[in-house]
Amino acid sequence: MESGNLLDSINSPNDIKKFNINQLEALCAEIREKLISTVSKNGGHLASNLGVVELTVAIHYVFDSPNDQIVWDVGHQCYVHKLLTGRREQFDTIRKFGGISGFTKPPESKHDPFGAGHSSTSISAAAGLAKAKKLKNEPGSVVAVIGDGALSGGLAFEGINNAGRSHDKLIIILNDNKMFISRNVGAMARHLALIRTKPWYFKVKDNVEFILQHTPLIGSPIRNALVKSKSIIKNALYHSTIFEEMGLLYLGPVDGHNLAQIIRVLQRAKSLNKPVLIHTLTVKGKGYQFAESNPGLYHGVSKFDVDTGDPIGPPHSETYSEIFGESLCLYAGADKRICAITAAMKDGTGLTEFSEKYKDRFFDVGIAEEHAVVFAAGLARNGMKPVFAVYSTFLQRSYDQILHDAALQKLNVVLAVDRAGIVGEDGETHQGIFDVAMLSNIPGIIIYSPSTKSELQNFLYSALYECEGPVVVRYPRGTPEIEPDGFHADFGNYNLFTLSKNANILIVTYGRLFFHAARAMEDLEKDNIHTSVLKLNRIVPIDPTCFEFVNNYDRIIFFEEGIKRGGIAEHFGIELYERGFNGKYSIHAIDNKFVKQGPVDKLLSLLGLDTEGMVKAVIQECKN
Amino acid sequence: MESGNLLDSINSPNDIKKFNINQLEALCAEIREKLISTVSKNGGHLASNLGVVELTVAIHYVFDSPNDQIVWDVGHQCYVHKLLTGRREQFDTIRKFGGISGFTKPPESKHDPFGAGHSSTSISAAAGLAKAKKLKNEPGSVVAVIGDGALSGGLAFEGINNAGRSHDKLIIILNDNKMFISRNVGAMARHLALIRTKPWYFKVKDNVEFILQHTPLIGSPIRNALVKSKSIIKNALYHSTIFEEMGLLYLGPVDGHNLAQIIRVLQRAKSLNKPVLIHTLTVKGKGYQFAESNPGLYHGVSKFDVDTGDPIGPPHSETYSEIFGESLCLYAGADKRICAITAAMKDGTGLTEFSEKYKDRFFDVGIAEEHAVVFAAGLARNGMKPVFAVYSTFLQRSYDQILHDAALQKLNVVLAVDRAGIVGEDGETHQGIFDVAMLSNIPGIIIYSPSTKSELQNFLYSALYECEGPVVVRYPRGTPEIEPDGFHADFGNYNLFTLSKNANILIVTYGRLFFHAARAMEDLEKDNIHTSVLKLNRIVPIDPTCFEFVNNYDRIIFFEEGIKRGGIAEHFGIELYERGFNGKYSIHAIDNKFVKQGPVDKLLSLLGLDTEGMVKAVIQECKN
Repeated sequence: MESGNLLDSINSPNDIKKFNINQLEALCAEIREKLISTVSKNGGHLASNLGVVELTVAIHYVFDSPNDQIVWDVGHQCYVHKLLTGRREQFDTIRKFGGISGFTKPPESKHDPFGAGHSSTSISAAAGLAKAKKLKNEPGSVVAVIGDGALSGGLAFEGINNAGRSHDKLIIILNDNKMFISRNVGAMARHLALIRTKPWYFKVKDNVEFILQHTPLIGSPIRNALVKSKSIIKNALYHSTIFEEMGLLYLGPVDGHNLAQIIRVLQRAKSLNKPVLIHTLTVKGKGYQFAESNPGLYHGVSKFDVDTGDPIGPPHSETYSEIFGESLCLYAGADKRICAITAAMKDGTGLTEFSEKYKDRFFDVGIAEEHAVVFAAGLARNGMKPVFAVYSTFLQRSYDQILHDAALQKLNVVLAVDRAGIVGEDGETHQGIFDVAMLSNIPGIIIYSPSTKSELQNFLYSALYECEGPVVVRYPRGTPEIEPDGFHADFGNYNLFTLSKNANILIVTYGRLFFHAARAMEDLEKDNIHTSVLKLNRIVPIDPTCFEFVNNYDRIIFFEEGIKRGGIAEHFGIELYERGFNGKYSIHAIDNKFVKQGPVDKLLSLLGLDTEGMVKAVIQECKN
Repeated sequence: MESGNLLDSINSPNDIKKFNINQLEALCAEIREKLISTVSKNGGHLASNLGVVELTVAIHYVFDSPNDQIVWDVGHQCYVHKLLTGRREQFDTIRKFGGISGFTKPPESKHDPFGAGHSSTSISAAAGLAKAKKLKNEPGSVVAVIGDGALSGGLAFEGINNAGRSHDKLIIILNDNKMFISRNVGAMARHLALIRTKPWYFKVKDNVEFILQHTPLIGSPIRNALVKSKSIIKNALYHSTIFEEMGLLYLGPVDGHNLAQIIRVLQRAKSLNKPVLIHTLTVKGKGYQFAESNPGLYHGVSKFDVDTGDPIGPPHSETYSEIFGESLCLYAGADKRICAITAAMKDGTGLTEFSEKYKDRFFDVGIAEEHAVVFAAGLARNGMKPVFAVYSTFLQRSYDQILHDAALQKLNVVLAVDRAGIVGEDGETHQGIFDVAMLSNIPGIIIYSPSTKSELQNFLYSALYECEGPVVVRYPRGTPEIEPDGFHADFGNYNLFTLSKNANILIVTYGRLFFHAARAMEDLEKDNIHTSVLKLNRIVPIDPTCFEFVNNYDRIIFFEEGIKRGGIAEHFGIELYERGFNGKYSIHAIDNKFVKQGPVDKLLSLLGLDTEGMVKAVIQECKN
């Protein structure tokens, strides 16, 4: 590939409007080169961005951002958009601490009208933006770009159901790459597959329609049948995709890598005063052979070697997700009641092996976290043991279902909550810092927060066999640390560690912060500050026997890798009050704020939740 | 009507299987009589139950509950089902304290395989039940009955998207009464209206299909066109409803009041080994003229006179909902940016007048609480002032959207949270006791909890004009109490009331519990127990100046009409700790449990949250 010079000339989307089709195509090649080289260094979403190069260029060629507003669903496919909207020079900071986000983010640019990170929001957001334009008599179209995977989310359906009856200038671009994160699933996917077999379908339809209107029908009984059912056939011809039946004008499918074709369709859509759906077919990973042939693997990547496609970095260590997946396979081998459910995150949640070994008990429900929980509740009611493996941040979609369907009915639905706590480079929209506060208010719920490999294995077992109602086992992204010397997991509801008989300060924590607390205890001991560490394993409900020894301490300090309001530290503090603890109590948690992107270690340090932060906090508080 | 004798003979669904069609019809008449007489005394859901009399009888005639499992979406239309499944004798206790529930409830009967209360869960639940049957090789069908309104919820779509690709014995009965609670909305509703115009549509389709298969096509160019596009037409004929495109076998529409017709279709569906959707057309309120002509009004009713249809009870007093609706109309008259959104609860949330006066700024999005919030966020981004009026319990569906779409983007979406706190007869699934715990962990959120009419009006104004990001104004079901003597609302973040300079106990509360606290303070004063009452108005964030005077008290007692974990009392207690309060602190709230059905006063009393409970609690704690 040659080094870019067209891309370097683009400081706003206006700069591409003067390009001819050959220049646009050359620009696309430069953009691909830039994407591959940057993501190979920073990590990030590669395959999805390679798939929308032509589509993004065409959108900015036809539309006039920010007067026309473009909403990217999920937002992970916005890299090309960022390159074209004044963020080219910061592009090598993408996903880095202090750098630009890997998702759309309004504070970054007027060209990002709506932020994203979670799936299936774009149609509803665009419907709101378009309605406001209409009410205020402001010109311009609103464009939502949504993948076929994101369409499996109920929120997208709600958006279409409402958009389909409006008369606003709303253009929905379905970016159909036949797979979202893992292989796409569900009836909608099958429906799209059917449409895909009929390229330029709407042209043929126009043709048939013309003939039916202008030619007398000859012959009987076919003539009679057609006449009798004319309205049905007419409806059938007019309403042949699910989108048309939902009130959208359907255009497509078009080749999402054919610039001329996309530009033509976008121009037609722009000229209309009604909601339109444009169905584009794209290839995820387009233009980079390794990504094209394995788009799932290249959906979200860490650093890699451009020439070989191989990852660069430290050798792989077993992750919490993998430990979970292996354990569940083990248990499922002995118990045919165990089922695994994922919401389009089979690989990320460690369920690949399960999906192959126990195919009939594995369910990828699409990006449908609400359905996942209610479906699990149904399975549980009829005697199965469902486990829904899900990232903490995406479980936020299921609060009502966990409460109203699982907890109220005391159904033993196991929630394997992955990416609990700080997740790093994906930033604010993905940090798993709310699940504890969200879940702990649900009556009867049980939450385990293992720190180590053996604890994860053990508490998953407890969740399956020793509890009733919904049970959560939550664990962070990444690899468990090695257990400190002298650590012996006994799988109780908590463990107390002490280095000195004189300990008068109690550090309380749970999850991976335990490793930091253990190191802080050792460091403090060297400074003659004597602490104990109380490691909670079952964080909801807190074992009441914890409170039997608290009066041995003058001061209790709780460190929590989660939002403060509604977190375990608050519940713990209230129990201290109720039990008449007379010492000082303080909380170090994430207080009333979102946590930005950056490496996990860096963020924990900034939050004062790493070893050094704990040591400092204890020393500081001892001065008070 | 004559008094029933068939109904009295039914102790289980088996008892109706021996009836002939005339007897079944007579039974339906008896059931209608029973429904009207009971609901006229107890209140409850009338119109929806009158609409499903024949359907329910037919289901139990054809299927064999509990081996076949029937899941009622929302569950408010389960009265007939309860009458036929062994709960006839308790039927007059429906919705009463200690009586049977107005919704399906597994602990009540083996014939209720899945509980409900919130909308759009039935398909997912039934999919789980059916999948478990299949995996365990258990016989029997699973039947989900869902209204056309509930279909507008994204969860129902997620359910269909997943059910449509299974091969389980799952029968979805779409109970299409052309309106759910208010008039149904959205593209799906329009699609259903289209289908409805073609009765026995599937028969015609069979006919056309037969002809196309057996008759050579004569004539050109129509012949050529048909041949060229044969697969399209075939697809069009086979996939003519949205349900068929989603992989379900579609049967219907059938007259939901024609027993013979429904029974025939149900028998056909039962014989198939694949997911089926049966489209039944019913009339909400069928058989009671007042309900038929005004089904919205008779959706959920209080006691009424059977002969006149008029409500029986105390004269109407202005409700919180009405105050909200009037105020919003007032503000909207002066500010064209104000929009109102409801999720199929226009009347219940007090938005009827708004919907008539400001038609272009009123949006009934269907039962789609997730869409409502994201749509509102889109409106807000482009400069509008959206207000989403919603019951507390249904807002549980929107946690992720409030956090990820409104709060993270600091968009001024106003949430008017109605039915906050205990709601009464609707029971566990509807109590509004979780919104505060759910919402207060969201960074930057502001929550107001007015007690009086003028406070509701004022804090709604503050939410619209004095805040950024999402703002909640929450208020209970029913009518505000009259303000106590000496009460002067100053619309600050809190108010402090004291009867005696010697007050050494501080009662803290918010919302309608304030009225109880004020009376408790008076009663306690008579017993020479000197208390002050701190009434919080802005409950999140708590105004820090509250804590300037807390050290004047030896003891602080917080009464909260909401779940304890994650509630304001916990946040308040932690602030006390952090600010070094040395006295006693205790919380009286709803601790780790659901709250059953019953009159609001009765339930508050049982929870110790009424005047008497507060007096007792204070006296008791003073003894410690």
